[in-house]
Amino acid sequence: MVYLDYAAAAPVLPEVYEAMLPYFTEHWGNPSSIHELGEKAREALEKARAQVADLIGAAPEEIIFTSCGTEANNFALKGIAWAHENRGKHIIISSIEHFSIMHCAKTLERWGFEVTRLPVDRYGMVNPADVEKALRPDTILVSVMHANNEIGTIQPIAEIGRICRERNVLFHTDAVATAGLIPVNVEELNVDLLTLSANTFYGPKGAAALYIRKGVRIQPLLDGGIQERGLRAGTENVPAIVGMGVAAAIAKKEMNSRIQHLQALRDRLIEELPKRIPDTILLGHPHQRLPNNVSVAIEYVEGESMLLFMDMAGIKISSGSACVSRSLKVSHVMLAMGISAATAQGSLVFTLGIHNTEKDVDQVLEVLPPVVQRLREMSPLYHKAKHAQASKQPSGGGQGVQR
Amino acid sequence: MVYLDYAAAAPVLPEVYEAMLPYFTEHWGNPSSIHELGEKAREALEKARAQVADLIGAAPEEIIFTSCGTEANNFALKGIAWAHENRGKHIIISSIEHFSIMHCAKTLERWGFEVTRLPVDRYGMVNPADVEKALRPDTILVSVMHANNEIGTIQPIAEIGRICRERNVLFHTDAVATAGLIPVNVEELNVDLLTLSANTFYGPKGAAALYIRKGVRIQPLLDGGIQERGLRAGTENVPAIVGMGVAAAIAKKEMNSRIQHLQALRDRLIEELPKRIPDTILLGHPHQRLPNNVSVAIEYVEGESMLLFMDMAGIKISSGSACVSRSLKVSHVMLAMGISAATAQGSLVFTLGIHNTEKDVDQVLEVLPPVVQRLREMSPLYHKAKHAQASKQPSGGGQGVQR
Repeated sequence: MVYLDYAAAAPVLPEVYEAMLPYFTEHWGNPSSIHELGEKAREALEKARAQVADLIGAAPEEIIFTSCGTEANNFALKGIAWAHENRGKHIIISSIEHFSIMHCAKTLERWGFEVTRLPVDRYGMVNPADVEKALRPDTILVSVMHANNEIGTIQPIAEIGRICRERNVLFHTDAVATAGLIPVNVEELNVDLLTLSANTFYGPKGAAALYIRKGVRIQPLLDGGIQERGLRAGTENVPAIVGMGVAAAIAKKEMNSRIQHLQALRDRLIEELPKRIPDTILLGHPHQRLPNNVSVAIEYVEGESMLLFMDMAGIKISSGSACVSRSLKVSHVMLAMGISAATAQGSLVFTLGIHNTEKDVDQVLEVLPPVVQRLREMSPLYHKAKHAQASKQPSGGGQGVQR
Repeated sequence: MVYLDYAAAAPVLPEVYEAMLPYFTEHWGNPSSIHELGEKAREALEKARAQVADLIGAAPEEIIFTSCGTEANNFALKGIAWAHENRGKHIIISSIEHFSIMHCAKTLERWGFEVTRLPVDRYGMVNPADVEKALRPDTILVSVMHANNEIGTIQPIAEIGRICRERNVLFHTDAVATAGLIPVNVEELNVDLLTLSANTFYGPKGAAALYIRKGVRIQPLLDGGIQERGLRAGTENVPAIVGMGVAAAIAKKEMNSRIQHLQALRDRLIEELPKRIPDTILLGHPHQRLPNNVSVAIEYVEGESMLLFMDMAGIKISSGSACVSRSLKVSHVMLAMGISAATAQGSLVFTLGIHNTEKDVDQVLEVLPPVVQRLREMSPLYHKAKHAQASKQPSGGGQGVQR
């Protein structure tokens, strides 16, 4: 099997797995319990909190564990909206956020908040000047993701954060795609809130966190007990949190070598795919992009069909965000970048992981071109387009088109 | 170690543990992914959903997985409030709910909802007639817990549910203390929503569910992707959910024998503790109570001190709900039952599990009385009270007082 869908899910590291197991079998107490078994669980929780804080340059007490990135994003947007609505009801997001931000924003609109959605350029990049223009006296929060997994583009977060801070507006970034993969430091990024998720760096499902800068007022999304300083009630998922902590410590240590490894594989795919498959467009920014992301639109082919053929050949890839992949809708991210719906239908997303090798890339480069060729041959749309091209410019075809 | 704090946390069953492991190491795909690895995870998810549904007599599509009971309770209250506020803004709860309901209700009040808190009798029992009286034309939801873990009392849920249905008002029950421990059937209980949590029946932390009767409108608490029919976004914690499913299937099969085992141990503690420790009051209902719950107030002693001494002797118990135990506040449940703050300070909660034996009970009966005696001897309050009693009724003392 060749797996190139690490943004959707990644296996846990052996060290992470081993670290978690005793918290199922031995130290299974409730961290809130006063007795010794509770103490053991509590110590593990606080160790993990320090490890996660260390990954992003935060203080441990600024880390609130959640069950997933989606929960952390909901907590950030709704929690800040509830806590600050007396100061204003205007929120700014980008138009390419993950659905957990996009749909929160819609909910906030139903509750009487006003939301400005910032445009992105053809590379999916937000312009900090647009943030500056969108800020109003009643703006209480700006939320722009650090990087988008569908297209890989890394946003100018530090610059946006600087602008927000000057105007005294809280700034949140969804760093699920970056934290643990590339250097993320909450001080350098000028953020007040930051979402990160364990599975990005080979931690388990069921563990994520929201960084909340000291002094930032926020309402809980989950009311109840006094866990997580009263900001996130519910018995802590200790094994998963322990796994997240260990994964964070390893990610910090191995980050540089991982990035080098991923970039080499990524760059080969980015270079070779358009050469081997005509009418292939690289999506996202050519340089400001995640080291593990290759995103392309292959014209005149349906992404879903390519996925199925590739799956049968043992190659696991994606056509966009896993969270909505089964809805079969055209990606809002691609549309926001000005990609036509027809072109977006042919999108393929490769997200690489530390286990991938040169051979995996060879496999893709060997298997995908004939799959595309075969699908195109069955497509009336393809023949029509090629016919039209041929009558217009008889010498055309063969080369990948870069928009 | 003697562990009698199963309501706070329980170890997972070996079968549950074994069932979970492959979902860390082998089938770690994202259930939303279209390829084969996603398919494997999705199948596991749906199998678990059917197992959990079967435990409570529901249809699989009526089960929405959440990360903990607290999340499910927040989802139920806030989700129903948001979806039905155009019909009315009145909600009814009992005065002894878990903090995840109590504090949600406070939040709803801040949002302009009105909350009626039903009284309980000295056994902690809600009177269905009080529900009937509290219902108003603008009531949109009633939430009464199935049983309270601090005192063990099982509420007349079926009767309350019948009343709500007659008046066309939605009815939720927090069944975290009961589902998987005693028979729970959503049809017999006449409920529209029901919260259950895996750890109650030896499933893992990080997995719980909200049952939502088909046709009930609710807003998500977590907005985002289309997981869980669009009602709970976020990548599913597949290993934990698989564990919950297996635990549910085993719980259903072994329920009767487990109940018999637990009841025998419980009844011995209930009988012997007041005999061996003077001025010990049984809390909660004498008969309508959880098979695994023994809740007592030991007069003239601080619960926390008893916990520490018992902990040192290797016996792990609790003085109330783990979710607030570290806040050291007097339990709102005890106060609602009319127990004085002074008496409530001496509360001890034993929650038994399938691994407990006669020997564990022997240990408690051997260790606790001298601990209490020693603590009382150091307490000026105790001497003062004994002195007052002696001058009033020279023949008193020695027997447990039943209020």
